[in-house]
Amino acid sequence: MDRRSFIKKAGLAAGGVAATALAAPAIAQTQPKLNWRLTSGFPKTVLFFNPADVLAKAVSEMTDGNFTIQTFQNGEIIAQANVVDAIQAGTVEAAHTCSYYHFGKDPAFAFGTCVPYGLNPRQENAWFYYGGGNELLNAFYAKYNIYALPGGNSGTQMGGWWRKELKTVDDLKGVKFRVGGFGGAVLAKLGVVPQSIPAGDIYTSLEKGVIDAAEWIGPYDDEKLGLNKIAQNYYYPGWWEGATCCHFFFNTAAWAKLPKSYQAIVENAAAMANVKLQAQYDQENPAALRRLVAAGAQLRPFPDAIMDESFKQATIVCNEYSATNAEFKKFWDAVKPRRNEGFLWEQLSDFAYDSFMTTKQKAGLLL
Amino acid sequence: MDRRSFIKKAGLAAGGVAATALAAPAIAQTQPKLNWRLTSGFPKTVLFFNPADVLAKAVSEMTDGNFTIQTFQNGEIIAQANVVDAIQAGTVEAAHTCSYYHFGKDPAFAFGTCVPYGLNPRQENAWFYYGGGNELLNAFYAKYNIYALPGGNSGTQMGGWWRKELKTVDDLKGVKFRVGGFGGAVLAKLGVVPQSIPAGDIYTSLEKGVIDAAEWIGPYDDEKLGLNKIAQNYYYPGWWEGATCCHFFFNTAAWAKLPKSYQAIVENAAAMANVKLQAQYDQENPAALRRLVAAGAQLRPFPDAIMDESFKQATIVCNEYSATNAEFKKFWDAVKPRRNEGFLWEQLSDFAYDSFMTTKQKAGLLL
Repeated sequence: MDRRSFIKKAGLAAGGVAATALAAPAIAQTQPKLNWRLTSGFPKTVLFFNPADVLAKAVSEMTDGNFTIQTFQNGEIIAQANVVDAIQAGTVEAAHTCSYYHFGKDPAFAFGTCVPYGLNPRQENAWFYYGGGNELLNAFYAKYNIYALPGGNSGTQMGGWWRKELKTVDDLKGVKFRVGGFGGAVLAKLGVVPQSIPAGDIYTSLEKGVIDAAEWIGPYDDEKLGLNKIAQNYYYPGWWEGATCCHFFFNTAAWAKLPKSYQAIVENAAAMANVKLQAQYDQENPAALRRLVAAGAQLRPFPDAIMDESFKQATIVCNEYSATNAEFKKFWDAVKPRRNEGFLWEQLSDFAYDSFMTTKQKAGLLL
Repeated sequence: MDRRSFIKKAGLAAGGVAATALAAPAIAQTQPKLNWRLTSGFPKTVLFFNPADVLAKAVSEMTDGNFTIQTFQNGEIIAQANVVDAIQAGTVEAAHTCSYYHFGKDPAFAFGTCVPYGLNPRQENAWFYYGGGNELLNAFYAKYNIYALPGGNSGTQMGGWWRKELKTVDDLKGVKFRVGGFGGAVLAKLGVVPQSIPAGDIYTSLEKGVIDAAEWIGPYDDEKLGLNKIAQNYYYPGWWEGATCCHFFFNTAAWAKLPKSYQAIVENAAAMANVKLQAQYDQENPAALRRLVAAGAQLRPFPDAIMDESFKQATIVCNEYSATNAEFKKFWDAVKPRRNEGFLWEQLSDFAYDSFMTTKQKAGLLL
């Protein structure tokens, strides 16, 4: 940049000493010093926390340290349950969390994360970025002063640790199972007694028999909780979380005040966080699974009858919400055809490929 | 930013008129005016071209237009085959292409894109970002003055348009098939006569009988070529491209000259391009597939015998290259266990979920 363009950039007529004094605020408009706080809905011990730091680091690097975002884990400044309220009130400018934690406020919050038997991770990204998903979500979130960007995915989660083996749908009756909002609503229809318990208390609750089973995330994060030491039956797949997406939430007023360049910087950093979290889970889970199996975990698929019945009930629950909640209906009507088209097309592409590769993996031919 | 921090930032001691004159270059160091050229290995008509524009737009927005990247489609300034040479010589600062187009230079180039029966898209990202893949690739590319970043994926491609139906491995013998480097090397072992033909000539070549079959990408891009009008048998899956990743290539000297903030900006923009291309293919392919079927395309899975034999030959080819090419061996030794662990873990997670959802799709229960 030569001096002339610098002066033009600074919005100044060429001039002497007076120009020096005026230069600072004009440049500040382009690269203002900003310090934001971001509250995470996750503890630092799980990979789901990482996108917050990926975003903060990227934003700082891209702005030469002019825009910094301080990250806080769940509960440090805001408890997970209060994240939406905090963003709505502008107590913090930013958050990173799973939208479905606010399912109790409105079940439509689930669609930012996933619904039982919903889209898989690639279908979610397709819907978010090119299928109108981001726009539909942000029209909903706007009522809470939230502007949201996809911020990572775990892929399909595990179905949790169960003391007793499951053989029939009846085996679910009366089981006290630690599970989040929407999954719990469906499982309740099958007789499960859903329990809401924070991560730090899961081990003790399972050990003391307060609960009979608990789901958390997947091998890498579950291993840290040590649930395999109490309940060895490790069920799959976690059909209530086929693709658990987390989001960055921004207070809309704080977002609107950002220079356009900073908005673009945050959007791109969020995309980096989105692709990296999935990559990290995919990298870490296989080895963690092997360690858990070596430590005695018994891998068990949910019986077909449980899968079929829970699928049926999930559809019923979604239709029930749709009947009374127009926002929910809008999302469900958008997700259903996207899901059908995705799972149709993949039979010719990725699912066909993965199916073949799986047969070779089972035959020991991939090494 | 207050005046004091502005002055500190500009690297100046506080002072009068002299400081004004010195301010410009110091600020220029942070946000210099730059204009780069990026040559794409793709024509503008395919989705694979889009990441180039996604990157250019994002970089410009993030730098308030100070760093602009002009994009050119294949052949406008550099032909696809010469992309690596152009980057190596610094003729252009940037490119976006599939690494495997340079398979003829060294078969190890394939690993940036995919090898037949290699990693799936999520396994690739896991390997790139967290499994040492980016580092291994860049150690290889450095010999060509290339610094590379993943820049999009199509997912599993289709197996192309064939005039004649395939029933046995023998049906492949003598078939003149338009197909790229590595896939062609494996198919040649099965008797196929691989043909290298640029996109613009595929239709005519197939129509005139110069070739008997042709593969391109997937439904959305294939539809534009109109190959279904000549050869109705549309085979799947494209096992030689289970996950076709494209990369951004940067001349290492040009990259090293970028301010750190600009490097970060390009890295994050590339991640945005990476996640968005896959999302766009996943969004567009299902509807294109329906249109192709309505226009007469016959969907046919490759017969088991062809899948099994080509898998066997792919392994042989990879082992042959490994025996004589140390770089190739390094990649193959890294990819093999990653592939095995991925396809093992997914049997409990995403593949288990997708399998169940596929049964429901087939039963018409996803709508």
